[in-house]
Amino acid sequence: MIEEFKPRTAGARMTARFLAVPPGFTVRGLKDLLYEKAGEFETIDYVYVTDEGELVGVASLKEVFQAEDDMPIRQVMRGQVIEVGASAHQERAAYLALKHGLRAIPVVDCNRVLLGVIPHAALLEIFHQESAEDALKAIGIHHKPREIEDIKTTGLRLIKARLPSLLLGLVGGTLVAYLIGGFEIILKSYIALAAFLPVIVYLSDAVGTQSQTLVVRMIALEPEFSVRRYLWREAKVGLALGAACALAVFPVAWFIQGTVIFACVVSASLFISVILQSLVSTYASILLHDLHFDPGTVSGPVTTIISDLTTILIYFAIAVVLLKIV
Amino acid sequence: MIEEFKPRTAGARMTARFLAVPPGFTVRGLKDLLYEKAGEFETIDYVYVTDEGELVGVASLKEVFQAEDDMPIRQVMRGQVIEVGASAHQERAAYLALKHGLRAIPVVDCNRVLLGVIPHAALLEIFHQESAEDALKAIGIHHKPREIEDIKTTGLRLIKARLPSLLLGLVGGTLVAYLIGGFEIILKSYIALAAFLPVIVYLSDAVGTQSQTLVVRMIALEPEFSVRRYLWREAKVGLALGAACALAVFPVAWFIQGTVIFACVVSASLFISVILQSLVSTYASILLHDLHFDPGTVSGPVTTIISDLTTILIYFAIAVVLLKIV
Repeated sequence: MIEEFKPRTAGARMTARFLAVPPGFTVRGLKDLLYEKAGEFETIDYVYVTDEGELVGVASLKEVFQAEDDMPIRQVMRGQVIEVGASAHQERAAYLALKHGLRAIPVVDCNRVLLGVIPHAALLEIFHQESAEDALKAIGIHHKPREIEDIKTTGLRLIKARLPSLLLGLVGGTLVAYLIGGFEIILKSYIALAAFLPVIVYLSDAVGTQSQTLVVRMIALEPEFSVRRYLWREAKVGLALGAACALAVFPVAWFIQGTVIFACVVSASLFISVILQSLVSTYASILLHDLHFDPGTVSGPVTTIISDLTTILIYFAIAVVLLKIV
Repeated sequence: MIEEFKPRTAGARMTARFLAVPPGFTVRGLKDLLYEKAGEFETIDYVYVTDEGELVGVASLKEVFQAEDDMPIRQVMRGQVIEVGASAHQERAAYLALKHGLRAIPVVDCNRVLLGVIPHAALLEIFHQESAEDALKAIGIHHKPREIEDIKTTGLRLIKARLPSLLLGLVGGTLVAYLIGGFEIILKSYIALAAFLPVIVYLSDAVGTQSQTLVVRMIALEPEFSVRRYLWREAKVGLALGAACALAVFPVAWFIQGTVIFACVVSASLFISVILQSLVSTYASILLHDLHFDPGTVSGPVTTIISDLTTILIYFAIAVVLLKIV
């Protein structure tokens, strides 16, 4: 049964060696079962109560120990069970366990039939796996963390893991270089435009990365969040961040290049780029998730290239208009 | 006792409500204790065996259930106990539990006296807390994840959290702009130098971030790793990455600007910057850790600024020498 589930779903991480009894089972019977067969179960943190397969209750081992021997488990169990669907993402199961302080979490199908239990060790492993992979993905490495993080891993292996995203970044960078080269006349008349290019590109990227990281974490923590409300908040935040950066850079740009109109070019570009990147990164991440892509995998050099190209185009477009070049 | 320990140490996360018995205690006595007082303990995953305070063994609940009633616990327990020192970082405790598949981990002082136990829920919480904070730190947010990741958090709160690192980046960026502005003559004669600036800055940053992330994770996973060996491997990796990037950019730079000597400037700068950033980021992170700073907190805009400034200086220095400008 377990083999049917896709990797990284709750169903793929569950064990079938758990303890389940019908509602009429007595505490004494349960204790006897524990003594005789404790070794056969992978998880004995909780006793699950099922009625013709359906999950109807749960009791912790502590609660069983404290109950009278002749009580039926129905009287000991809690009827409100925190459970997870078999096709849910494994991260969801780990977050539910964390949120409710559970040692193990039951996995059910769409009819609430108990299929298995994700034991404690798997929950820890899921958290570790997901966070380690996210950390590596953020630096462009899409390999198993265990292999990359081993001190004995050879230099050659690490080069193979680190190089692809750098080369992709290089391709994007030369595209950017080619684009900038096309604005040679503008750059020659205003060399300060070249000087401010890196800061505008850096800030747009930084804001986009912030927005993406925050929305990806929101998706994992609260899969049911309101996209409309989230985007509305992000729009307000992006507007404020853009305005603050534009205001801060204005006097500096004025001082360095010496004209108000140049300072306006830098400020306006920064303002528009920051708002755009915050909204685009957020919405693109939500869209990728809805299409069942992992936003972390697709981002990195690719998002950087797209973000850099649009930022540079905005910058030069505003420069051409305001500085009345060409 | 628990209040004495610094935050984020193993000692600060332990509970004193655990189960410990002397080696001569019988299995029957233990079972009785469990029935009577199960509710008083915060963790009953394991029974710890102490001899005049010193931790000498451990037995899981399963092992106790399967043993004969009149056996002393000495015969049931395992003598090899995985434990953690009270002053160790909490992340260390979580990694040990993960590595050895433990549900709880005992905390000892330097004389192996058992002080407490970190229960299951705390282990999950540590993993979550550390990974969530790392993810936020990477985007320049140094606040409690719970506050930032709440869907109800106001836009104003998020602006306050996101703005400081952006403004710091802006300060660094204008420094960079000021520096580039100083090379106006060089830039005017070779406008392609301006076009390749963003790609060189981006790649050096990317390599530095890779190196830093990898060494910070190594420090957390294997606190006893050999720094000399690690740096030697990193030097080889940096050399190879620098060489590969330099080779890849050479034909493109040649094609875009049209002269071999210009392509040499771009390639040589990239080669030197990549090697330098990989080694400097790695060594700086190790140094910060040794000085009890969290490398994640200090990095971000500050490292970016330093890395960008050195990269640009290397680039223009090589340009001046090879292109025989001035």
